[in-house]
Amino acid sequence: MKKDFKPYYAVIFTSTQNEDIDGYSEMSEKIEILAKQQTGFLGMDSARNTIGITVSYWETLEAIKNWKQQSEHLQAQQKGRQDWYSWYNVRICKVEREYEFNSKKTS
Amino acid sequence: MKKDFKPYYAVIFTSTQNEDIDGYSEMSEKIEILAKQQTGFLGMDSARNTIGITVSYWETLEAIKNWKQQSEHLQAQQKGRQDWYSWYNVRICKVEREYEFNSKKTS
Repeated sequence: MKKDFKPYYAVIFTSTQNEDIDGYSEMSEKIEILAKQQTGFLGMDSARNTIGITVSYWETLEAIKNWKQQSEHLQAQQKGRQDWYSWYNVRICKVEREYEFNSKKTS
Repeated sequence: MKKDFKPYYAVIFTSTQNEDIDGYSEMSEKIEILAKQQTGFLGMDSARNTIGITVSYWETLEAIKNWKQQSEHLQAQQKGRQDWYSWYNVRICKVEREYEFNSKKTS
């Protein structure tokens, strides 16, 4: 934990998908490219097994709000509800502390 | 977003593993069982592809601190650094807002 740690925000997106997710992969790639172009975007992590988890990181709550309202992202969200997701949950979080382990930096 | 939403906490654990993770699966199951027994534990989501993401949810920061210091969890953390993880990151977050979509609840 750094003393000069500056809080930022995380959006935790958990989801379960339908069996037929035709078109999802292409949209997912497109949306990730667009997210990276947004002001205030800091990074993104994704993994999927039974459940999918995507966490995106943002400088401010305003950046998250702007991304949620971005026109192509709005279309993707609608398509997601119609066709791809049986369930999803979105959590808006303030990252208050952070620490890291890297095996290459120790013994 | 509910008006009576009560903030809680999320721990975002992202990691990459070594090739040889002998013993990891058993430990992972054991630790999940123990976490669920901790005071203040609310839930957990996990997925792994290139990167692993585990998000656990907690009532308070104190519950997170207690879990971090739990004796068997401390042993697991040490073993993780020695043998299983090439890298990991831990983010302690306050969940400020949350919303959900469930296809079974809509048209």
